[in-house]
Parts: sequence; C-alpha cells; structure tokens
Amino acid sequence: MYQIGFDIGGTNIASALLDDDLNTVRELSVPFPHGGSSKDVALLLRNMAEKLTVGLVEISALNGIGVAVPGSIDPKKEIVINAYNLGFHNAPLRGDVQAHFPGVQVLLVNDADAAALAELYKGAFRGAKTAVLFTLGTGIGGGIILNGRLFTGGMGNGVELGHAVLQHGGERCTCGVQGCVEMLCSATQLVREGKRALQKDKNGLIYKSVNGDETQVSARTVIDAAKDGDAEACEIFASYVDALGSAVSSVINILDPEIIALGGGVSLAGDFLFDALCKNVRQKSFYTEFARIVPAQLGNDAGIIGAALLHKDI
Amino acid sequence: MYQIGFDIGGTNIASALLDDDLNTVRELSVPFPHGGSSKDVALLLRNMAEKLTVGLVEISALNGIGVAVPGSIDPKKEIVINAYNLGFHNAPLRGDVQAHFPGVQVLLVNDADAAALAELYKGAFRGAKTAVLFTLGTGIGGGIILNGRLFTGGMGNGVELGHAVLQHGGERCTCGVQGCVEMLCSATQLVREGKRALQKDKNGLIYKSVNGDETQVSARTVIDAAKDGDAEACEIFASYVDALGSAVSSVINILDPEIIALGGGVSLAGDFLFDALCKNVRQKSFYTEFARIVPAQLGNDAGIIGAALLHKDI
Repeated sequence: MYQIGFDIGGTNIASALLDDDLNTVRELSVPFPHGGSSKDVALLLRNMAEKLTVGLVEISALNGIGVAVPGSIDPKKEIVINAYNLGFHNAPLRGDVQAHFPGVQVLLVNDADAAALAELYKGAFRGAKTAVLFTLGTGIGGGIILNGRLFTGGMGNGVELGHAVLQHGGERCTCGVQGCVEMLCSATQLVREGKRALQKDKNGLIYKSVNGDETQVSARTVIDAAKDGDAEACEIFASYVDALGSAVSSVINILDPEIIALGGGVSLAGDFLFDALCKNVRQKSFYTEFARIVPAQLGNDAGIIGAALLHKDI
Repeated sequence: MYQIGFDIGGTNIASALLDDDLNTVRELSVPFPHGGSSKDVALLLRNMAEKLTVGLVEISALNGIGVAVPGSIDPKKEIVINAYNLGFHNAPLRGDVQAHFPGVQVLLVNDADAAALAELYKGAFRGAKTAVLFTLGTGIGGGIILNGRLFTGGMGNGVELGHAVLQHGGERCTCGVQGCVEMLCSATQLVREGKRALQKDKNGLIYKSVNGDETQVSARTVIDAAKDGDAEACEIFASYVDALGSAVSSVINILDPEIIALGGGVSLAGDFLFDALCKNVRQKSFYTEFARIVPAQLGNDAGIIGAALLHKDI
C-alpha cells in the first residue's frame, strides 16, 4: 500500500509516493504557481499524484494523502489561515484537494509539524513518546510529539515554539512581540550579528570571507569564522548558543521531553553547535537527567514524509 | 467509597477524607514534625487516617490515598528528591507510607501538580482536556493537564513552569539561571519592587501603608496601593502584569491550552489583575482565539483534594 505526501513551499511543491516501509518510491517537484488559488493548487496536486502513481497503484487505493504548508491552519484542519509565502489567506485547501481525490483521506498539516511527525516514524524520534523539534532557519519552526502522537495545540491552533518569549522587553519580533525565541535563536540572528561584526572589524574573518559584501553574510559564514577561531564570530556564536540554551532548557523545564532534535540550516554546524549547546543546557536544566539533544535526521524531505504519514497519526 | 488526601507542608500536614462526590467529609491538620524521617511522617499519616475514618469506613476499604509534597519527586513517583521545607532529600516516602496501608494504593505527587488535578475534577478545569495552572506565590508553581490527565513531564521529572526562561540574561533566580519566570512573576517580585519604591518615595501609598517598615511590604500592600492609584505602585503592577502576560502568552503559544488558571496570593487581586492580564495577553498571543484565563477555584484545599483524586488519574 502507498501514501503520498506533498510539501508546498513558496518556491516548489515537492511530493513523494511512499510505500508501507516508508521508503520513497517516486518523487516529483514542480514550481509553486504563484498567484493561483487553492483550487488551482489542488488541481496541480491531482496531476502530480497521477504521475507519482502511474503503473504502480490506483489513486483510489492510496492509504492517504497529506499536504504540508508553511503557515497556520485552522483548528479543524480545513483552512490555511495564513501562508504568506504562498499568498494563501483563509484558503479552504483541504476541501479543494479532497474534491480531486474521492475515497482517499486528504489531511492538512503545518510543515514544521509534519517534520516532527516524520522524525517520529522515520528519524530521531523513533520509539519516543515525548519529543520536541526546533527548526533553526530564517525563522524558528517547531513541532511537538506528546504521548507518541503529533500535538497541534490543545485548541488545535498549532504550536509556535519560536514565539514563546525568551527575552521579555527585548528586540521586537516580526510578530510584534518583544524578545521572541525566533528573534534570538533563528539563523537570522546570526546573520544580523554577523553584519554588525562586518562593520566593526575589517580585519575579521567574517569580513574577509565575504569581501566586505554585507549581502553575503550568512549563518554559515559566521559559524565557519567561529570554527576558525575569529574572535568576533566566536563571541556571536557563544551568545547565540547561550540564547538557544535558554530556549531549549525552557522546553525541558516545561515539558521534560525524552528527546529534542534540532533541524534547519544552523543545525548543520554539527558537533560545534551541539557540544556547546548541551553544555549550556546542562547548566540551565532543572533536572539532572533530561532530554537528549540531537540533530534532526530528515532534511528537506521531512515535510513530505510527515505529510504522507499523517493518516497514521489519526 | 472514600479516599484520603494528605498535603504535607513545612508548617502543617493537612488532610481530608473525601467521598465519591468529592465532598470533604472530615478534615484534620497537625503540625509537621520537623527533624523526623519519612518513616516518622508515614506513621503519623497512619494515625491521621485512623482518625479520619473512624466509625465511617475501614482503612483497608479506601479507594486510595494520595500524598502531596512541596518538592520534586523521582520519575517512578517513589522518592521525594528534594523538599527543602520538609528537610526531605531522597526520602522513600511512598514506600514508607504504603507499608502502613496494606491493600490500599498510596500515590505520591508534587503539590502544584495535585492542585492542577483538583481543578480538573472539582474546579476551573472541569471538562477541559488541556489546561495549565500557575500558582503565584513566594515562588511560581504550576501544573499541566494534557489530554484530560495530569502531565508530570515526558520523562516524569515534573513540570517547572516557574523555571522557563522569560528574560534571557536577566536577574539570577534562586535556581541559578538568569531571568526565570519565577523571578519576574512571583509575589516576591512585587515585594522586591515594593521595597524599592518604599525607599524612593516617602510620600507614596506603599510607604504610608506600612509606616516605612520594609518588612511589612507584601504583594498585597503593593496591589492595594496600585488599586488606590499610587503612581509608583501602578508602575510596579503594570510591569508585573506585562511580565506575567509574557509568561502566560508563551504557554499559550507553545501548548495552546483551552484554559489557564491562576492561583496563589497574587491571584486574589481579582479583576484588577485579570482584566489587565487578559488585555496584555491578547496583544501577545499568536492565535486570535486562545485560552480563557481565570482564577483557580480551589484555594488551600487544592493539594489535599488533588492528592485524594490521584488514584482516579492512573
């Protein structure tokens, strides 16, 4: 038996057909049709599903179809309330897609939640009952597994780990609140501080690595300079780890999960990040024995895989 | 059928016999025997149980016995790891008590967790599946209800809502971490700021209400002065509400509970607190529809009632 996962992003719609061992049998990616309605996207998904299944399985015989979106979903999991990258606002996407797949269960999910579910079935969270995923990218996404299932909020609104307050009275987040986790712990914070360092020190490694071109400063530039021992970069990285340690230890003290996984671009810093972070969290955790902190195992495919597995989580 | 709840505090051991309608049939309170071992306390609980049940029910016919303590409990719920007010460290309290009650299930619980469970069965959380209790006292206690049951952490370590980081880099908490929720949102913060105001302004209402005696400044002094329009007190109270609003909205953004209850001394400020808090949280919540924020309904008896009901939560 097979299932399909779609991961709709602002650039591409990625998709895959998975078998019951959760192996990816076929993959397909097409550009996201900007300006189209959710009905247009639904029709596109039908066409993609036909290509993914042709000669292998009838669409009507699929176990389920999951659709991951980068945005907020209503508590009934019918409507994309806001997905800015897609231009979707109050879009009845689930129903629009369902209309093209009679007899097959179509489910809608936030992409960060899908990633957490994928880790549960196929990645770092296997065997765990309680787990938390942070994705450290341009913003901060996150997903929570409770009691061996995806938790999308007690009222179904979602979980917004990036929008807990970490520095009451601190810098204002794009959401309007001061000092959100996202402000201090996203890759954007490393970029922001990297640009400040660039302007302060023309002899620094950050400056040299981008030839003084501010637009080339990335989280990776800063992390690489820190790995190479650049003083400014080390300071930025240490501050970043300290803030991330506060965010992670807060989740430990509130939920006491068995495992916490970090995904997204910043997590690619590897042991350089994880060793420093674990040391920081050990100082802040209220408990002696606490969650293992590990890299997320599923990269770009996490959203697709999680979406495909949604029907197993019901 | 009957059940007994014990709430062991540093001053008294309070207890009650509850019937199956959760009514308190008999109550009994005795001074806490400081310096005694957990075996001594266990024997005392047996004596108390005999008095609570005499002529009504055989002890061996009780539904269950719950024991609430103001401290941390090991994941197996056998040992009080640390309860500073009781002088208990690694005390095998559950087993010691169980030895005196053959055939009756004896269960151990943190007192703030017990209070949350009591709200679920008999108070503000009735009918809720997901709920969070903050007790705003000298410190900050808290309890979480998930999926209609008491949640004591994914690894069983507990939940420490007071020790999430709210102000990364802020003032150091008694736990050693900077900027914990407890530092900004406990009654102690109002006292601390009240004392500062006392020293700044001898014409202020706070100064007048305690005749300049710093030791008499309480959360209530400050709140009453704010209610009476004292400028300093209003500023302190507004800052306090802003911090509490950040803590509450963080829990909303992470867990999206249906309901949040506030207990403890500060919550007695009533509408003056709740109106300002709800307004503040509305600005910070990520979701349009979010948790109701209400006063906890069970006061000092919450620990006893929750302990007595523990066996229903298994």
